[in-house]
Amino acid sequence: MESSVMKKALQEYVDAFNQKDLERLISLFADDASVEDPVGKPLKKGRQEIEEFYRESMSGESKLELLAPPRGSFSNAASITFAVHTKMEGRSARIEVTDVMTFNNDGKISTMQAFWGPDDLRMV
Amino acid sequence: MESSVMKKALQEYVDAFNQKDLERLISLFADDASVEDPVGKPLKKGRQEIEEFYRESMSGESKLELLAPPRGSFSNAASITFAVHTKMEGRSARIEVTDVMTFNNDGKISTMQAFWGPDDLRMV
Repeated sequence: MESSVMKKALQEYVDAFNQKDLERLISLFADDASVEDPVGKPLKKGRQEIEEFYRESMSGESKLELLAPPRGSFSNAASITFAVHTKMEGRSARIEVTDVMTFNNDGKISTMQAFWGPDDLRMV
Repeated sequence: MESSVMKKALQEYVDAFNQKDLERLISLFADDASVEDPVGKPLKKGRQEIEEFYRESMSGESKLELLAPPRGSFSNAASITFAVHTKMEGRSARIEVTDVMTFNNDGKISTMQAFWGPDDLRMV
């Protein structure tokens, strides 16, 4: 998998999220993909669960802000590091996140892991 | 594993690397740890291989610059995103990297994966 292909998909992931374009975002995933967001909590598996997860995630005022260029690898994995700007109970909040994605041979996201913990969320 | 414990270890990793303190850096790893740097290339396994890898990595003028706060998780994994400032054939180079580490119950690094690909290295 070319790093450039993976990075383009990751940029599209961020753009689709910020434009609340659920269909475009979901189209980036393989049908049998899994999402672990945050790492350490139960997986969302398959298109239906992943779509529900992102529909919910996108329902508020959340925006993703990339903090560094996407990173590739010498295999089928790539990562992005960003802040989520969101609202919680009417107040502004910020979550520090790094996503690691793996891709299948069709260039679709096969696995997604979102690294953030309890102390990566703060009210601002 | 508390996120704060993992983040402290990751900050210590960066500091030890920048101070060329090989012993302190190696002490952060479990005896049976593995290092995949970059992701997609063969693993370094166990203390001896890891020590050789970092001795070599530290032998030049490389410095790590954290670009965002470390991220934790709800399990035993955490990540850091940084730039490596280094020299290659007498010229300055920059590598964009994200490391994901997992920790054992003693708070030692059990696995390390460094996400960077061919197009994350550029001469500056």
